[in-house]
Parts: sequence; structure tokens; C-alpha cells
Amino acid sequence: MRINILTLFPDMCYAYLNESIIGRARKNKAIEIECMNIRDYTLDKHNRVDDSPYSGTTGMVMQAQPIYDCYMALCEKTQTKPHLIYMSPQGKTLTEQRVKELSKMSDIAILCGHYEGVDERVIEELEPEEISCGDYVLTGGELPALMLADAVARLVEGVLPNEEAYTNESHYNYLLEAPQYTRPYEWRGRKVPDILLSGNHKAVADWKEEQSLLRTARRRPDMLKKATLSEKQKELLKELEHSLINTEI
Amino acid sequence: MRINILTLFPDMCYAYLNESIIGRARKNKAIEIECMNIRDYTLDKHNRVDDSPYSGTTGMVMQAQPIYDCYMALCEKTQTKPHLIYMSPQGKTLTEQRVKELSKMSDIAILCGHYEGVDERVIEELEPEEISCGDYVLTGGELPALMLADAVARLVEGVLPNEEAYTNESHYNYLLEAPQYTRPYEWRGRKVPDILLSGNHKAVADWKEEQSLLRTARRRPDMLKKATLSEKQKELLKELEHSLINTEI
Repeated sequence: MRINILTLFPDMCYAYLNESIIGRARKNKAIEIECMNIRDYTLDKHNRVDDSPYSGTTGMVMQAQPIYDCYMALCEKTQTKPHLIYMSPQGKTLTEQRVKELSKMSDIAILCGHYEGVDERVIEELEPEEISCGDYVLTGGELPALMLADAVARLVEGVLPNEEAYTNESHYNYLLEAPQYTRPYEWRGRKVPDILLSGNHKAVADWKEEQSLLRTARRRPDMLKKATLSEKQKELLKELEHSLINTEI
Repeated sequence: MRINILTLFPDMCYAYLNESIIGRARKNKAIEIECMNIRDYTLDKHNRVDDSPYSGTTGMVMQAQPIYDCYMALCEKTQTKPHLIYMSPQGKTLTEQRVKELSKMSDIAILCGHYEGVDERVIEELEPEEISCGDYVLTGGELPALMLADAVARLVEGVLPNEEAYTNESHYNYLLEAPQYTRPYEWRGRKVPDILLSGNHKAVADWKEEQSLLRTARRRPDMLKKATLSEKQKELLKELEHSLINTEI
């Protein structure tokens, strides 16, 4: 899979993309993630890529031409038309379900707006999928783009050590994950739950499932409604239900 | 205002925090945002900060001690108890409303989990506010922490050039922003809407308000329900309503 990030701040993006799990995956060629500098495509002789908005509000708006030409150069280079995504607070809110779908594509391009946003006409012209990372506002699209790249990349084969590392995670199946514990066994008087030391794999798995259901029911009842529960999970949930009444989250 | 990010990857975070709008605001002392390296606080002689989870799943879990001691060092240094936030997919979903509230605090600390998460006991001990940036999973908490810092910072006085730059934004009042245009007037046959060139400030403001309402009604009817509309906006919305029927988003 190949992800291209179209941005005015490629160095800032690479500082993230070169590190930790994603950095290793890029080195091992499990995934290709590169940045293109939109400024390289401006036709302005002073290298400008933005200008003040029509209508007199403050701030700067990114011009259509450099963005359009940057994407066209990518199409030319890859000899394909990568699925274009524009990170925008006006887009559809991102979910892990959409991340899963995107992780099956072969070529994605992510456009980062900055300052006050981009000229509307480049949106009309390129018709990107508009995705919002959530109902809050940021100074630019770089963090959302990196987030999307990160979320998608970790579902691509070979990026994480094995499949278990992502199928157990919160949100993968509309369930929150059970709590995690590591050494030492006792810390500040708090001990690891005994069941995790029992060596009984079935009992451990049952405990985790119970914790996962309980947490989701307490913290995210809205999410639990979307989960596809097994008969066993449904029964477990019923048993847990009375324990939920009058329980602090 | 002061924000401290507790992380295993301070350099990655500084690469973002040194750039653009946030970089300038930090230089101008409009806001203080610093990173603390959790690894500096481990008592392990090999400088380890993580270990494999109890119960035999894959991945690594961040240990309680280095995180706890890092936060305690921050309290010691600042002679206060900064409001601690843990970025976690298990937390409450972040909204611009919560961002506004946080931007009024004087001291915030944001803990970044990484790998498979953190030992549950440090959560029980420090009782952070758990915040999720959305219903998707990432390889670490650094991007969510930077996002929160960025979203909060831009509402702090002096970070953006003036108040207009944020009160007009999408989500600030549960309304999406009107489309933006900048030079040139014509690009690939697409022209800037004439009204924006009229010089009639009232007409421009009305157009923007109309576009903002229309967009929110089309794209985010769920959000529109939360907005506090003026009588004028309510009337406008009624007028727009019939135009919404059979209209493509």
C-alpha cells in the first residue's frame, strides 16, 4: 500500500513518519508513506501558496492551483489516480470501520489544509472524500492526516507484529479493550488481578471478554449498540447488567 | 497557559510544536508547551519503560512507575497539580466544547500512551481525565496529544492573530464554516461567487451565514440540532429547508 501526504510541512510529517512503529514499517517496506510539498508546485514567482480570502475576513486561504498541480503530478508519477482524501472539519467523522475499508486500497493521497482552509474550487474540481477526525478545530490538517495514515497503516499486513495486536484493540469490533497490566506484580499496594497469573487461558480469555463488555457498557453504551455480540456475550451482558446499576463509571 | 506533554517521543512532538502557528506562539510566549520524556524517570537500570503484558497477549505495556514519577516530578517543578489528561480510545470523545473549557485552565498535562497502552494501575492511581480523539485506533498517543494541545492552544489569547480567526470556524458554534475563496478570481473556468466581490459587508455576512446553515443542514444535521440559532437564523433555515429536498450533499 502507498500513502502520499500533500502538505506545506513535509519535514514536520516526516518527523513522525520516521519514528517508532510506522518508521520501522516504512524501512521494512511493509508500507510506503511519502510526503509531497505543495509549495513545489506553485506557479507564483515568489513561491506563494496562499492569499487573503475574498470577503475580507482574516487569515490566509490556500490557493487552488498548487494543490491541483501537486495532485496531478502524483497521478502522473504513479500512473494511477490515488483515492484523494481531504482532512476537513466539514467532512464525515472518521470511524475505525472507514479506516478498515481504506486499509484495503492500494493508493491513497491525503491533502492537508492549513491556515483558514483551501479555496473551495479545488474541492469542486478534485472532489476528494472529506474526512473529519472529530468535532474540534485545529490549526492545520497535518495532524489529522498523520493520524489517518497511522490508523490505516497499522491494519496493513506486516506493519504490526501480528494480527492479534489489532483485532483485540478498542473500537475494532465496537468494544473497548480490557485493562492491561505489566510488571511488577505489586506497585504502590496495587496488585495485578490474580486471574491473569492463573495460567488458565480460558479463564483469562473469559475475564478479558467480561471486562471488555463491562467497560463498553459503562463508558460507551452508544458504541455497544453497534457491536455484533455472540450469544455468549449477550448472556454475559445480561448477567452484568444489574451490576451496572448504581455503579460509578 | 502551560501544557506539558508526557511522552516517550519528545523529539517527534517538538518537530510539530516548533513549526508554524504553534511554533510562533511558543516563541512569543503566548503559550508554554513543553515535553517531558517519561524514560528519564524510569528506575530500571536498563532504562526500560515497558514490559510484556500479564496474560500472554502480544505487544508491550508501559509500566506504571516511570509515568507516575514523571507526573510527580512535574507537580514538584510547577508547584501545582496540573490537570492530567490521558489520551485513550477508552475516553470521552473530544468536542470543541471541551476544548473551550480546557483552554481556560492554567496548567494541563497530557499523557501519551504507546504500544499496547499503559498499566491500568497508574490510571487508578492518578485518575486522569481520559479523552479519546475519535472512534479509531492509533499506534500511540502522541498525535492525539498534539492535536489536543493544538486545539486548546489556538483558543488561548495571542496564539491566533485575532478572535475572529476562531469564532468563525467550523464547530465553534455547532455550525460548519462557509466556503472560502482566494485569488485568482477565475481558475479552470470556476469563478469566485460575485457576492464576495460586491463590497457590501452586510450582503457578504448574510451569504456566509446562509452557506454555513445550509452546509451544516446538509452534512451534519446531528450537529445542527445542538446549535443555538438566532430568530433570524431559524427563519433562514426554514426558507432553506425546501431547497434541501432532493439536493445532493
